[in-house]
Amino acid sequence: MTDVLVLGTGLIGTSVGLALRQAPGYRVLLADQDARARDAAVGRGAGTAWDGVERAHLVVAAVPPAAIGLTLFEVQRLGIGETYTHVSSVQSHVQAEVEILGCDLSTIVGGHPLAGRETSGPGGASADLFVGRPWALCPSGGSSAAALADVRALATACGATPLIIDAQEHDAAVALLSHLPQVVSSALAALLVAPGPAVRTDLAGSGIVDTTRLAGSDPVLWTEILAANASEVAPAVRSLAGLLDAVARDLEQVAAGESPSGHADALAGVTALLATGNRGRALLPVKRGVRDEAFARVVVEVDDRPGRLAALLTDAGRAGVNVEDVRVDHIPGRPRGVIELLVANEAAGTLQSVLSECGWSARVDG
Amino acid sequence: MTDVLVLGTGLIGTSVGLALRQAPGYRVLLADQDARARDAAVGRGAGTAWDGVERAHLVVAAVPPAAIGLTLFEVQRLGIGETYTHVSSVQSHVQAEVEILGCDLSTIVGGHPLAGRETSGPGGASADLFVGRPWALCPSGGSSAAALADVRALATACGATPLIIDAQEHDAAVALLSHLPQVVSSALAALLVAPGPAVRTDLAGSGIVDTTRLAGSDPVLWTEILAANASEVAPAVRSLAGLLDAVARDLEQVAAGESPSGHADALAGVTALLATGNRGRALLPVKRGVRDEAFARVVVEVDDRPGRLAALLTDAGRAGVNVEDVRVDHIPGRPRGVIELLVANEAAGTLQSVLSECGWSARVDG
Repeated sequence: MTDVLVLGTGLIGTSVGLALRQAPGYRVLLADQDARARDAAVGRGAGTAWDGVERAHLVVAAVPPAAIGLTLFEVQRLGIGETYTHVSSVQSHVQAEVEILGCDLSTIVGGHPLAGRETSGPGGASADLFVGRPWALCPSGGSSAAALADVRALATACGATPLIIDAQEHDAAVALLSHLPQVVSSALAALLVAPGPAVRTDLAGSGIVDTTRLAGSDPVLWTEILAANASEVAPAVRSLAGLLDAVARDLEQVAAGESPSGHADALAGVTALLATGNRGRALLPVKRGVRDEAFARVVVEVDDRPGRLAALLTDAGRAGVNVEDVRVDHIPGRPRGVIELLVANEAAGTLQSVLSECGWSARVDG
Repeated sequence: MTDVLVLGTGLIGTSVGLALRQAPGYRVLLADQDARARDAAVGRGAGTAWDGVERAHLVVAAVPPAAIGLTLFEVQRLGIGETYTHVSSVQSHVQAEVEILGCDLSTIVGGHPLAGRETSGPGGASADLFVGRPWALCPSGGSSAAALADVRALATACGATPLIIDAQEHDAAVALLSHLPQVVSSALAALLVAPGPAVRTDLAGSGIVDTTRLAGSDPVLWTEILAANASEVAPAVRSLAGLLDAVARDLEQVAAGESPSGHADALAGVTALLATGNRGRALLPVKRGVRDEAFARVVVEVDDRPGRLAALLTDAGRAGVNVEDVRVDHIPGRPRGVIELLVANEAAGTLQSVLSECGWSARVDG
């Protein structure tokens, strides 16, 4: 039995506890400065309350970024654990801090599960938050192989895919993949409440909704994250601003109605950026860890009565096909809706014919 | 019976046909310069092929933006329809064009269904593409009340919510709500393939995936749209670049490790932007036309065997609760998954207790 002490029972800490409780061989102890948050996590079944002295094999500091260094220093000084990790969105910063504090570096391996939600706190936690997500492991030069193995086992037990990566490289990657999208999403949403005539948000479609989803994030927590990775985020934000300035300049030229040849040149720049965006987008996984091409969508039109979705999935079950994802597209009170079933490419044809035999209007999207 | 001629059987035109075929009182004729696209739309059941001379009550020009003016001029000259509309993402531009061409303005009312998908062409079309979406109607000063009533009836028949709005106001709104998100999404994705060391996209989480979803769009079509609305999009792009420049400046100051007070000031600016983003985000509908607060999520943990989703929804059906949306969170081959059921707030408690009675591990997310 491996004892794991989770310090900080927010969204991530509580989810770690929930995930480990479902994995064989782990016992979870929970602590939080806020006793209510700890009790909520205990109530969710994430583990038992730590008494403040019991030792554990592995200590996970799931506290806000600014508190990680001191938290690790303190528990290490008390000799609570044998291996220590944390779940920080920024790694170099923490690595430098624990070194300056004089921690024993051999037992510390930084970690960063690439999972999160717009919600926070133990209430939003889930045993499956990490399933199929990358979990970056950033050993320092001083980390021992045993400590790395412990933290790697933790990530695996939570269902994540451990990736060993240099702290600096990690921070550069998340600046582009996580921190810059947060800044952009917030800035886009901020323009909707900029001074001037009110924006007709009743015209909002899915584009602005998707691009501003992150804008619901906690401003204080995110300021801390951006500050901790400022040296990587600042140039990324500058680069994006530069690309946007170029588009603005091109479109201003078009708006000014200058010579047709200048117009064509300006538009060529815009088209090139959009085409480069196509290439960048194609690099990203769409379903956790799996690119979009592996899946096909079977689209079914249904009337919107309670129980229709269950009936459809019961019929889909007859096809012996595992439905990977479901999207329901309708609004309350409307008579019809569309249900999209995401299945492995090779299963789409079978599913479509079985559903058609059962009387559904089904087609493979393409 | 109202005859509707749809010119252009791409995603939008074919979807209009499919939607009208399900609405009572409409007959749909289809035309496309590309006979294969027209045949595909006919094959999908969107209408019958137009013979090139038959008259229709309402003509819908669902052609690319640059072709709308001439298309309307031509069919109006031939006296094909009584009322004419189009489905352009940009309105002022088309209004000016039909005026310059000398069209009869009384029978023309511009339209813009705020619906779209990353796919294009008749294959991606759906009868329910417009359900619950806004459909902007932009009559010019010269449009007759009868023409406006015809186009409004079309939008309603397609399941959309018609919104009458001035063309200029429309274009300013979509610059922020649709065109700017497209530019930003493409620029973000473009940075992933910028020169330099390859970005570790294996660390990608849902943030970059959501913010770059639009980056999969067609570069040529979007260049046309951005060019047509250049005078509104250019200042929006400039504003966003300005916000980003300010963030970059603040973070550069933090990275340079200047005086603590300067550091605090710089971070205050970043926090303020993130907080303003929270306010902007709150203005947006999350479920088609409905804000997020109206719904609650009931989260159920399930093992990942075929048929479990169907069994769950069958049990949910017993609660008499209409499930508005379903999110399945797991990856292929993993033993467990999480299913989120989106239901009206007042139904969440009932659903949770019925599911618990049926032996599911269900909780209301909060």
